[in-house]
Amino acid sequence: MIMAPSTVISPPGKPNAFAGVFSLLAPQMAALDTFLGGQLEAFEPEIRAMVNYCIDTSGKRIRPALVFLSGWKDPKHVSPDLVRAAAIVELVHLATLVHDDIMDSADLRRSRRTAVREFGPTAAVLLGDALFAHALHLAAHFPTTEVCAAVSESTRRVCAGEIVQTLRRGATDLTPAEYQRIIDLKTAELFRVSCFLGARLSGADDGYVGASNRFGRHLGIAYQIYDDLADFFGREEKIGKTLGTDLASGKLTLPLFALMDRLPVYERASLSEEIAGVRPARPALRVKQMLELGVFDAVEVAVQDEVSAARAALAEWPGRAPTPHLLSVGDVLLSQVASLRPVG
Amino acid sequence: MIMAPSTVISPPGKPNAFAGVFSLLAPQMAALDTFLGGQLEAFEPEIRAMVNYCIDTSGKRIRPALVFLSGWKDPKHVSPDLVRAAAIVELVHLATLVHDDIMDSADLRRSRRTAVREFGPTAAVLLGDALFAHALHLAAHFPTTEVCAAVSESTRRVCAGEIVQTLRRGATDLTPAEYQRIIDLKTAELFRVSCFLGARLSGADDGYVGASNRFGRHLGIAYQIYDDLADFFGREEKIGKTLGTDLASGKLTLPLFALMDRLPVYERASLSEEIAGVRPARPALRVKQMLELGVFDAVEVAVQDEVSAARAALAEWPGRAPTPHLLSVGDVLLSQVASLRPVG
Repeated sequence: MIMAPSTVISPPGKPNAFAGVFSLLAPQMAALDTFLGGQLEAFEPEIRAMVNYCIDTSGKRIRPALVFLSGWKDPKHVSPDLVRAAAIVELVHLATLVHDDIMDSADLRRSRRTAVREFGPTAAVLLGDALFAHALHLAAHFPTTEVCAAVSESTRRVCAGEIVQTLRRGATDLTPAEYQRIIDLKTAELFRVSCFLGARLSGADDGYVGASNRFGRHLGIAYQIYDDLADFFGREEKIGKTLGTDLASGKLTLPLFALMDRLPVYERASLSEEIAGVRPARPALRVKQMLELGVFDAVEVAVQDEVSAARAALAEWPGRAPTPHLLSVGDVLLSQVASLRPVG
Repeated sequence: MIMAPSTVISPPGKPNAFAGVFSLLAPQMAALDTFLGGQLEAFEPEIRAMVNYCIDTSGKRIRPALVFLSGWKDPKHVSPDLVRAAAIVELVHLATLVHDDIMDSADLRRSRRTAVREFGPTAAVLLGDALFAHALHLAAHFPTTEVCAAVSESTRRVCAGEIVQTLRRGATDLTPAEYQRIIDLKTAELFRVSCFLGARLSGADDGYVGASNRFGRHLGIAYQIYDDLADFFGREEKIGKTLGTDLASGKLTLPLFALMDRLPVYERASLSEEIAGVRPARPALRVKQMLELGVFDAVEVAVQDEVSAARAALAEWPGRAPTPHLLSVGDVLLSQVASLRPVG
């Protein structure tokens, strides 16, 4: 079910599209690896191997990157507070992935067996809980409760978004406003809090913290819309997952809304039936229609609009150190969307 | 699987055995009800009804009671800090119950449909996550990070204990030391942190906080051993669950260890096979043997030993306001164990 962003996977060895903009983060990411590796000791000996299995290093780590970039000072600056915050958002994200994979009965993630396949669903539920609990424990090591408060609230909102999505699966009366709300909660929230924490913990003033916060939220919405488009237009061998799963699993996303709007009235019923799961999904037909009817263009515009809103949040602060780096993440996302367009 | 303590349920309307000692907590429990009810507003509107379903008021609330009792000043004193802490430990407990019921595929809890039956497993996993996240969010409202740190660490330990129990289910080579470790983590931990928080937040000195902490841990171990004995000797209509489930589900508990020790060598293999699930469990036979071979007595002694250790923790502080109330909880537990003994 819930297709968290990182179900779009770069197979090991192939650089992900964000590798360029994130390459300047090598020292920070190395520090994050060291920090996460050191956390194993904090877990009870009996579950360390399982935790280690989950804390792999092959993810894109977009959320940690946003923490580092939004608190950017200079290439050599590796702030322990930012490393800790990056570990916290990554652990929360990993916990949601472990739980998502249980619910999706997913076999593989990042080309390895999922935790649920490796350890069974019972242990996987508890392992996700333990990862999340440890993230909050790390948050409690800051001098004030601000990080605990921000991370726990974000997590609750992510869960709420996923619950709504789950309950509305297969519902053909989902409204665009509900879709917007779901992706705002399930995806944009953790992007937002990553940018908030990076700015706050690097000592930025309230104005810039607020701007970074808004940037993160819009970037997260843009990212999820991109991910929903990639579900139809990605190349399977590139993104490492089966295409068309949203349609097959009854998840009404923006590309499907846009297609529904553009289909002749007499053709809408069959698409509704595919979403509702009462007839087999025909992803190839739907992709063809999406191209013919301008759905790709419309969704690309929606991503561009959100990236523009993200950019606008930083417009007053062009001279701050993080600003150009954050803007470049938006650029990469736009180029990713463009690269989904079939050639010829 | 994981039989958390409160799977021992008093049906609605019937007072639970702890009602006497907890009756003096009426003002505090009423404040807790009000507080928990007020928390619904904090959840996203879409999930409030589901959260409300989980935050019912029919549980025994032993953990909140321990918070209030370990921070006891006088009958009229209702401390907002203790109410908040009581809500936190109860929400963490409720979250673990929601997740336990998924893994056990349990249909009923407290004579109502479980969250997993009511909302489905996917929503139930996420709902448990949201309850836990909100508990930590409440913890972040204290002036310092101490409560966040204590609660998040406890939660991780509870999960670790449940993971170990899950992985070792059906294992006939589980050692008594492993059993001790499992119940220390999965049950005693939350009892301990409840007593720690009550004492700390009521302003007790470090010596008494430490004593309360140790009391809670030993009481929790005693409680779990009682619960494991009740799984064989409880009256079904009284405790509201099927008896002998630990044996049937391959969970090696102290009564089974004690029985194994006392069975003639040539009879041990068949019990091992029942634990391993390769032959049908025979709980009635095992209960009969437990009585004949002195297992009930031995397990009762084990509970008494832990209650004694709990009492010893408070021995230096007889004059402190919480002390007599905490000791009386131990007394009630001992009388509960005694009441399990079959008459005649």
